[in-house]
Amino acid sequence: MVKGYAGRILHVDLSANKTWVEEPPETFYRRYLGGNGFIAYYLLNEVPKGADPLGPENRLIFANGTFTGNPIAGAGRSMVGAKSPLTGGYGEADVGGFFGAEMKLAGFDAIVVKGVAESPVYLYLHDGEAEIRPADHLWGMTTLDTQNAIQSELGDSRVRLAMIGPAGEKLVRTACVINDLRHAAGRCGIGAVMGSKKLKAVAARGRGPVEVANPEKLRELARWMVEHWKEKAWNLHDTGTDGGLIDLHEAGQLPTRNFQDGQFEGAQKITGTTMRDTILTGREGCYACPIRCKRVVKVDDADYKVDPIYGGPEYETVGSFGSNCGVDDLRAIAKAHELCNAYGADTISTGMAVSFAMECYEKGILTKEDTGGLDLRFGNGEAMVELTRRICLREPGLGDLLAEGPVIAAKKIGKGAEAYAIHVKGQPFPMHECRTRHGQALGYAVSPTGADHMHNFWDGSLDKEPLSEEMRSLGIYTPVPQTVLNADKVRAYTFVVNWQWLHNHLGNCMFVPWTRDQMVDIVRALTGWETNQWEMMKAGERGVTLARIFNLREGFTRKDDVLPWRMNTPFVSGSVNEKPVDPEVLDEHLSLFYGMMGWDETTGVPKLATLHELDIAWAAAHLP
Amino acid sequence: MVKGYAGRILHVDLSANKTWVEEPPETFYRRYLGGNGFIAYYLLNEVPKGADPLGPENRLIFANGTFTGNPIAGAGRSMVGAKSPLTGGYGEADVGGFFGAEMKLAGFDAIVVKGVAESPVYLYLHDGEAEIRPADHLWGMTTLDTQNAIQSELGDSRVRLAMIGPAGEKLVRTACVINDLRHAAGRCGIGAVMGSKKLKAVAARGRGPVEVANPEKLRELARWMVEHWKEKAWNLHDTGTDGGLIDLHEAGQLPTRNFQDGQFEGAQKITGTTMRDTILTGREGCYACPIRCKRVVKVDDADYKVDPIYGGPEYETVGSFGSNCGVDDLRAIAKAHELCNAYGADTISTGMAVSFAMECYEKGILTKEDTGGLDLRFGNGEAMVELTRRICLREPGLGDLLAEGPVIAAKKIGKGAEAYAIHVKGQPFPMHECRTRHGQALGYAVSPTGADHMHNFWDGSLDKEPLSEEMRSLGIYTPVPQTVLNADKVRAYTFVVNWQWLHNHLGNCMFVPWTRDQMVDIVRALTGWETNQWEMMKAGERGVTLARIFNLREGFTRKDDVLPWRMNTPFVSGSVNEKPVDPEVLDEHLSLFYGMMGWDETTGVPKLATLHELDIAWAAAHLP
Repeated sequence: MVKGYAGRILHVDLSANKTWVEEPPETFYRRYLGGNGFIAYYLLNEVPKGADPLGPENRLIFANGTFTGNPIAGAGRSMVGAKSPLTGGYGEADVGGFFGAEMKLAGFDAIVVKGVAESPVYLYLHDGEAEIRPADHLWGMTTLDTQNAIQSELGDSRVRLAMIGPAGEKLVRTACVINDLRHAAGRCGIGAVMGSKKLKAVAARGRGPVEVANPEKLRELARWMVEHWKEKAWNLHDTGTDGGLIDLHEAGQLPTRNFQDGQFEGAQKITGTTMRDTILTGREGCYACPIRCKRVVKVDDADYKVDPIYGGPEYETVGSFGSNCGVDDLRAIAKAHELCNAYGADTISTGMAVSFAMECYEKGILTKEDTGGLDLRFGNGEAMVELTRRICLREPGLGDLLAEGPVIAAKKIGKGAEAYAIHVKGQPFPMHECRTRHGQALGYAVSPTGADHMHNFWDGSLDKEPLSEEMRSLGIYTPVPQTVLNADKVRAYTFVVNWQWLHNHLGNCMFVPWTRDQMVDIVRALTGWETNQWEMMKAGERGVTLARIFNLREGFTRKDDVLPWRMNTPFVSGSVNEKPVDPEVLDEHLSLFYGMMGWDETTGVPKLATLHELDIAWAAAHLP
Repeated sequence: MVKGYAGRILHVDLSANKTWVEEPPETFYRRYLGGNGFIAYYLLNEVPKGADPLGPENRLIFANGTFTGNPIAGAGRSMVGAKSPLTGGYGEADVGGFFGAEMKLAGFDAIVVKGVAESPVYLYLHDGEAEIRPADHLWGMTTLDTQNAIQSELGDSRVRLAMIGPAGEKLVRTACVINDLRHAAGRCGIGAVMGSKKLKAVAARGRGPVEVANPEKLRELARWMVEHWKEKAWNLHDTGTDGGLIDLHEAGQLPTRNFQDGQFEGAQKITGTTMRDTILTGREGCYACPIRCKRVVKVDDADYKVDPIYGGPEYETVGSFGSNCGVDDLRAIAKAHELCNAYGADTISTGMAVSFAMECYEKGILTKEDTGGLDLRFGNGEAMVELTRRICLREPGLGDLLAEGPVIAAKKIGKGAEAYAIHVKGQPFPMHECRTRHGQALGYAVSPTGADHMHNFWDGSLDKEPLSEEMRSLGIYTPVPQTVLNADKVRAYTFVVNWQWLHNHLGNCMFVPWTRDQMVDIVRALTGWETNQWEMMKAGERGVTLARIFNLREGFTRKDDVLPWRMNTPFVSGSVNEKPVDPEVLDEHLSLFYGMMGWDETTGVPKLATLHELDIAWAAAHLP
């Protein structure tokens, strides 16, 4: 029994219609912790080199973190991983809500799924048991209908679900996994992998609780957050993650019209304050979290009807369907969000697909004939919503085309369309501008999942003198301006990002204002390990390195650690005095980053000594 | 003002007869912490490449750690450093007692001395002031006479002294710096550097206390040690560091007759219990430490008279003059110890010089003519004491010869004598056998100060299943037997030793049973930094790397990271089933160690990316 964990990992072979349980030793938990630590471990060990992401050899991995399901704020998150059909490399998506917690309380730290079911199935986990159940009757359903049907047939309205909608079923490469209707494991197209396996849903019902080493200390920490979150995270509660949109606009860091610009004239209309004062009807949170940063919105007028059952848009969604599509109508954005949650598609990538099509349309690369009659000008909210629907359902024409993701779509379109697919490694950019933040630019270039903000660096944490104690206690003492990439920036990036990976190892939400000290204290209280930031940092570094090795094995090279040309080009409007990173400077600092990570400075291949130092010498067998 | 520190570093130019004070910024303290962190920094920055260790260009650095002088157990230690006249490379020696604390309370974290005085001087530090005072009248005196004279002329019996005796004055390459008569900064021959500068002593008188960030937390920690030291370190108090001699004998790890054997038939007669029950008259401790592991012995019989004013022998001294010389007479050992403290010579290196001469004598390489009539057979306690005296005073003949250290002496003797000089990089072995502990073998090979136990690894901490939490929380999960050198051992060595260096950065005594967590807590309470084991580990790694660079700049290469042949050869008696490390295996694992440290795996030269990662890019200018 490993405290803080269920101690059991479920293996599922859908081709053989069977399941079995692994009970790893405590050192396995301590080395890999959970979440994307487990994902990296199992992907590398189980997925054969060159496997088709949408074939039976790929693995679909649901993985909880150390925190997940324990009674502590931030413990609502879990991860889903697979070889990504969007990037062809290491894929992971993390998600809040309640499903992960329920899965742990049902007795499982992770589920490793291989094979393809003969016909649609769902998994039902309860009391340490796992059943594979038929799901033919659920195929084609929205997430809401799926949830209703499964809860009804199991006779238990407290069953929590991770599921796909039609997008995943139709192998839309930007499909996601939806938990509890309102929470999306968005990035990397993991929903398509779930669809390819004909796995409609995982239903979990647990009775827990998980045994923890020091319940009293855990309660003390939980109480601290209950008492302090208002002073530290009130804005997140009040105006949600979208509350900061207006600040990004003012700083010239708000992705606008497919990243052509960093400021949006309609920003005020779509920022969190406006949402609060207009369409917001409620606030929701994740398991055990007092902050409740999630939005619930309702629209019911002549133009749009949006059902609050699907929650409401976060900043990423408002950015991608809003400013990034030139749309300043929160109702349209909320509608696109509802469609994505109902059909199971990543709002970031879908919004980016729409904005890509809009730019192609405005530049004459796509015509009204190509768009099936849609007037795809930036700012046309109705067209944005309609194209979103078509992508989610892979409707013939532009919907089907964009459902392939930006790289394939742009290639099929030709005529220079590739220039407007703003992605790294096939993954469309999230709503964080990097022309004005050169550490983040490096982060996008080297991230194993491409343009991903979930394990990246925020340059704004490094431009103040004196630096915060959170920085200084990582050994980072030298401030660097946001638009500078130098050795100090690379160093800070390296340390911060190794720690960032840890959030997804632990299943901690990065918005919950735990300090690093407190995160360590939580791990100690849960597990009884006398751990510390050294051990945790090395675990994060281990995860980053395993993900890197997965990509190298699948054929990625240094050449893939690059940014799209737009990120080296000033904004169209020039309204902000930005200074994008010079590609040569970026390339030079790639070598430095590789070196700091103990990877070969030319190729970025981890050195054998580094694998030994990280206690993952077994991974050497997977080096290219 | 940097809390926990004096905030001031004294610079002294003895050639110019002047002093000045540097007040470094807080980031300097946070990067280098103190002790050998400061020593590495100043040696590399101030000593010109190729400087004569005994010339004016060398620097003599007295450096306190973070803990030193604060009211916490373990805070009695301080460091002295210089380019070593014994190894020609990075030199440091650490020492307990009271002088370091007094120096900090007098207002100085470190003293960096350059130049050579025209005639002997001493430094007097008090109330933040520094005076250079004449010491012609002190030249030639024992340490006791020196202390009496200075305390008397300053009219203050509470003045604490770091000083040299005749050995340092006469440039004996194994001379040490003696603090408070009873505490020796033994290794690396730093006393000769002090002698070469004609600096007889540093006298300090402080009024402190140092301002600390969290006095209450510090008191809580101090109280904890007062309440718990008996259960954790009673043996150290009761029988001193020599208490474990008998265990080493039983495990076949007691250096015997110049390391020919690992067991000594007279072990019982010289172990700490016997000392306690015979010549012990008291127990002493260092500043703020309740454990009092230091011995006070008195001998007053027909054969030997030993004055308790000089304290008594620690394990290292009992081993080097005892079993290692085949001597089982504690009285003779105590006498040799007294001579070394009075004349200022390292008991380890001096004992090793005697045992070297004894083996040469027994093997016919040295004759009675060479020894000036001494019958230098192993076991002859009287001859051992007499030769010790001659070395300390550099008396013509064998004394003068051995005062040059093992490398020069053996070369001068010729006739194959070099085989019996048991050293690494010119530094004689301390009393820790490495044939039975292969991690320690690696440690001796790669230590910047040669065969040094003060920042090494104890294989016995890694051969138990399950490993201790202190190990596991360093991320070390795999046990390895003592006589195995594999990648797991190298990894453990790397992490443990980076932490070990920290003791000498912080000025903490490694015998005081603080956990790593508590050490971090102490730093936090002293400085107010919200630091952690990550930041501390990186500081240790920084220190190791700077010391490495110093040696590389002075011409050391991979070829110097080797053990003497004897360490690859079984014991003469074969009484223990030992299995020395294979030189090829050691060499192979050197590469792995270099790689884990971010050094070139072939040459052991730190990579530029590693220097950036450690925030010491400035040191690149010193790479070979």
